[in-house]
Amino acid sequence: MITVLSGGVGAARLLRALSDVMDPSELTAIVNVGDDLVLHGLTICPDLDTITYTLAGLNNDELGWGLRGETWRVMDELDALGGAAWFRLGDRDLATHLYRSQRLTEGASKTDVTRELATHHGVKVTLLPVSDDPIATEFLTEDGRLSFQEYFVQRHHDVVVSGVEITGVESARATNDVERALEQSARLVIAPSNPVISINPILQVRGVREALRARRDDVVAVSPIIQGAALKGPADRLMRELGYESSALGVVDFYGDLVGTWIIDEADAALADAIRSRGARVEVTTTIMAEPENARRLAKVVLS
Amino acid sequence: MITVLSGGVGAARLLRALSDVMDPSELTAIVNVGDDLVLHGLTICPDLDTITYTLAGLNNDELGWGLRGETWRVMDELDALGGAAWFRLGDRDLATHLYRSQRLTEGASKTDVTRELATHHGVKVTLLPVSDDPIATEFLTEDGRLSFQEYFVQRHHDVVVSGVEITGVESARATNDVERALEQSARLVIAPSNPVISINPILQVRGVREALRARRDDVVAVSPIIQGAALKGPADRLMRELGYESSALGVVDFYGDLVGTWIIDEADAALADAIRSRGARVEVTTTIMAEPENARRLAKVVLS
Repeated sequence: MITVLSGGVGAARLLRALSDVMDPSELTAIVNVGDDLVLHGLTICPDLDTITYTLAGLNNDELGWGLRGETWRVMDELDALGGAAWFRLGDRDLATHLYRSQRLTEGASKTDVTRELATHHGVKVTLLPVSDDPIATEFLTEDGRLSFQEYFVQRHHDVVVSGVEITGVESARATNDVERALEQSARLVIAPSNPVISINPILQVRGVREALRARRDDVVAVSPIIQGAALKGPADRLMRELGYESSALGVVDFYGDLVGTWIIDEADAALADAIRSRGARVEVTTTIMAEPENARRLAKVVLS
Repeated sequence: MITVLSGGVGAARLLRALSDVMDPSELTAIVNVGDDLVLHGLTICPDLDTITYTLAGLNNDELGWGLRGETWRVMDELDALGGAAWFRLGDRDLATHLYRSQRLTEGASKTDVTRELATHHGVKVTLLPVSDDPIATEFLTEDGRLSFQEYFVQRHHDVVVSGVEITGVESARATNDVERALEQSARLVIAPSNPVISINPILQVRGVREALRARRDDVVAVSPIIQGAALKGPADRLMRELGYESSALGVVDFYGDLVGTWIIDEADAALADAIRSRGARVEVTTTIMAEPENARRLAKVVLS
């Protein structure tokens, strides 16, 4: 059993690659819910959906988010009505959010709904929201306090951030399934997701950071920053703004004593010794997963 | 200024006909919200939407509800997911519900949202939900207590009803706009909507029944039952099940001392004397509005 702490796109790709080289029913993802939102009355879970769609082979590669073959009837009309259409929700994608919102109203948990959607789409990996309680990643910026999607989608993460807060996290409980996965998995993997806004909300849920620290030897992390830059999204900029180096070394320092083995890209091989001097093992390989072959090679290193 | 107490389709047709023969900006509809529902997290107002769409010329005549040229991408996908797809929501129609739900979350009232949607669609008639507070029409049936749409849509109103309850109505307040319309309009019209489930929820809101009674001379009602049968929907059956005659006379008895002038169909001319003996004036004309010409004639009688 392997468990992967997961954000959105980067984690989805790693999970897909792992599914190719191992039995996916032995694979569990503990997924960030800090960027979940309620919009138009609908509960939307971007990271859970990205992973579900990607593992189902339904992800839209052109857009980098959402479903392939998507249409935009509802959004076009909402835009015409003067509604909040900046957060684009495709017609098929909307069905996911309608389904989830209704099931939550009926008393189902986010964990239940995630399992139902995964089952429907034939996804064999176990997908677990880190908590069924609401938590929300918020940004303290030069423009004031912003919600995750206001920062990420509405402002295209192009605003100076002075702090990140995970509201609600002090009272959020990790689910029993999450606690069990953290205890019983042979290996705990931190996906190459944004450390500050994808992985950090998971780590801040009570008990998660401690569980990793207690099992440091079994914790493997893949750096999402290569040659100082994030492949996608604002991880590099955010690291700098929050006082970390924008490099694989900065990520190592961000996670501190949680990680036993680091996997870094060949382009960063020169950093290996510095990382080792901080007390971790280092594996060097290609960590860019654009090519399926490279992704599978990375997956094998994660498992080795 | 003319104010029309309104349910869905029948009222929408009368309002459209009245708009043809008078300045629509002098026309107000006080609209039932007892069949409003929250489904999939979305707040849906079927009667308000039916009237808005009809007055905007966007109503779907084939279906008898919803928008013309509608598509069903979201519902088809929701159905595939195993979601609650029995309440059919078209893609364009969904944009209305997303817009409304988001605006309510932002603190707007149902009255605000109704005005915004009407303005967007170029509707000049003033549409007023009878109350901004939640009320819900529920049915006591042989199958237990059912919500409005469970009764109406899910069971196709094919279940024996022993009682109708408007929950929440004892604490609901008519809006200030509604109170003003009831006081200041030259004429108050009860549309040919279902008395039991469309008009009754309006009448039960505190102050509305009293306002009509105090102005009985100015109250005109159009019978929705012709030759013992409702043109559409379960009004006739419900009247019988609740102990009223299924006839224009039964409707007269249902409204009691609220109505000064009754408009009944030519086919029911024989009932005119019985209605007069109950203390009301009677006008006899064609009340079936399928033909625009007939609808306009009815509208002129309402105004005369």
